[in-house]
Amino acid sequence: MQGTVLYGPRDVRFEERSDPTILEPTDAILRISAACVCGSDLWPYRGIEPITRPTPMGHEYVGIVEEVGSGVKHIKPGQFVVGSFWASDNTCSICQAGYQSRCVDARPIGAEGAQAGWLRVPLADGTLVATLDLPSDDLIPSLLAASDVLGTGWFGAVAAEVGPGKTVAVVGDGAVGLCALLAAKQLGAERIIAMSRHEPRQKLALEYGATDIVTERGDEGVARIKELSDGFGAHSVIEAVGTQESMMQAIRSTRPGGHVGYVGVAHGVALPGDQLFFSHVHLHGGPAPVRRFLPDLIDLIWNRTVDPGKVFDLTLPLEDAAEGYRAMDERRAIKALLRP
Amino acid sequence: MQGTVLYGPRDVRFEERSDPTILEPTDAILRISAACVCGSDLWPYRGIEPITRPTPMGHEYVGIVEEVGSGVKHIKPGQFVVGSFWASDNTCSICQAGYQSRCVDARPIGAEGAQAGWLRVPLADGTLVATLDLPSDDLIPSLLAASDVLGTGWFGAVAAEVGPGKTVAVVGDGAVGLCALLAAKQLGAERIIAMSRHEPRQKLALEYGATDIVTERGDEGVARIKELSDGFGAHSVIEAVGTQESMMQAIRSTRPGGHVGYVGVAHGVALPGDQLFFSHVHLHGGPAPVRRFLPDLIDLIWNRTVDPGKVFDLTLPLEDAAEGYRAMDERRAIKALLRP
Repeated sequence: MQGTVLYGPRDVRFEERSDPTILEPTDAILRISAACVCGSDLWPYRGIEPITRPTPMGHEYVGIVEEVGSGVKHIKPGQFVVGSFWASDNTCSICQAGYQSRCVDARPIGAEGAQAGWLRVPLADGTLVATLDLPSDDLIPSLLAASDVLGTGWFGAVAAEVGPGKTVAVVGDGAVGLCALLAAKQLGAERIIAMSRHEPRQKLALEYGATDIVTERGDEGVARIKELSDGFGAHSVIEAVGTQESMMQAIRSTRPGGHVGYVGVAHGVALPGDQLFFSHVHLHGGPAPVRRFLPDLIDLIWNRTVDPGKVFDLTLPLEDAAEGYRAMDERRAIKALLRP
Repeated sequence: MQGTVLYGPRDVRFEERSDPTILEPTDAILRISAACVCGSDLWPYRGIEPITRPTPMGHEYVGIVEEVGSGVKHIKPGQFVVGSFWASDNTCSICQAGYQSRCVDARPIGAEGAQAGWLRVPLADGTLVATLDLPSDDLIPSLLAASDVLGTGWFGAVAAEVGPGKTVAVVGDGAVGLCALLAAKQLGAERIIAMSRHEPRQKLALEYGATDIVTERGDEGVARIKELSDGFGAHSVIEAVGTQESMMQAIRSTRPGGHVGYVGVAHGVALPGDQLFFSHVHLHGGPAPVRRFLPDLIDLIWNRTVDPGKVFDLTLPLEDAAEGYRAMDERRAIKALLRP
């Protein structure tokens, strides 16, 4: 098969890779229907997160089950499935507590490289969720979004304790931030503030449920959020970037006793203990346990209640993956969908 | 009247200060029955938190109401009252959400200096809670503990989501840490681990409900906590010190999805964003909103269900306050009670 491999900063190649095979009895092999480029793929693409060897890329995927190992009981060949970026058994104490991304037996899908024609998924029964039937083609982008960005934005909203009557702010207008707005709307938030300076993203933000757009950042951004929340700050703030600035923006925009849900992969962040202590916020986040939310998210998509697939504003054949990376790096695209 | 004043590192004096008077209609004047030295008083005492002028000390107090301003409706002269270290109106949105230590009109009691014969308490109706009657003398230490260390330990336990069936660890064996153990017991925790190396404190820890004592710290401490919690780490960890080491000890001792409640005043702490992100813990803390818990804590003490007053292992006349500071600084005493 062929798939994408990152060789170094801004050097993504589409090349021959060995076909995946069943290695463990709990494995499944998928024929990939769609994959995509993640905002987090841009960290190694930009060289900020150095790689030490040519690295297969991609951890977001939907596809059709081709083959399963002898230990797979529930997932069947022919099913259309959605998985997330951590394979998990979904049975250990940590999974049962809802933290499948920290399963005692967690395996990174990224190590397999989902931007390819085929993919081996370990722990198939725990990891994959099948749809009721084969989806119509127009649902595929949204189902693919559930695999990561929707699940991650949703976790951010849940971690930030979004709920009815609350004022919610989202720091970051990438695909995860936009999906967090959608989640906030679904979870019943009253006022939903998108922090965004980019006109096409602002438009999608409003479509997904944002009631207000804030373009200011730093002190001015904090002041604007407070103006929109009785002077106190938002009840819930979702951080979807992962920098020092975005984390402090989120913490400072939250009222005392409020909640920050942070899902941007932290890079170079050091939180000052005294500011955190006196902020009185709740802080929770990390790599999203997308599996916790997948069944519900798939239902919402299947019933056409939500349309997270709109975050894909660029669709490319898989062999043009490098252009997907370039477009996202240059912010010409929010997120690139790749079709094998 | 006379009271304690800190002049510089290790220079506490007992000297003449002006009598407090009603300055605002919402003030009350108390005749102090008991005050004490706080672990947080040791930061300026040790010069780690420099002071710029001679500073009246003390923010923990119980006493009898002597006089109230014209705007005080509920608190009456002659009542025995317990207050906390932040005066609060108890009516604003932030107070109603349970964060009275961040009341929109919060005033630090520390600025008044409670280690004295008399004390002005602003916002008396919001700040003070009266007991049913004058307490018997043996209840006074426990009621005084409610004013800060019990309320702070309790908030730590609530912030760490302590509850039935959970394994709880407490980092720090000062008065707050010991009270957090007591809180964990009352809140129904199944296993309660005290991290302590000091024999007299270990003894009180066991009396307050600790089921296990861990003397190790750092990596070994983390390993011991994991051994005692199915290999995953505690569900709830209360941090009651405020240093980089104690914060990281708490975060690393908590299982993915677990909760850290941190109440040690942070000094020189910088939390690495990546470690926090991948820890998957919930983090909440700050200066405790003791007022939220005071009515319940006073009931528990009044009914002799709990005896937090045992944290006072040294009782001195107020004029010997300097010896109280020295004894705590040298860890000869857990906490010094001062009687005017």
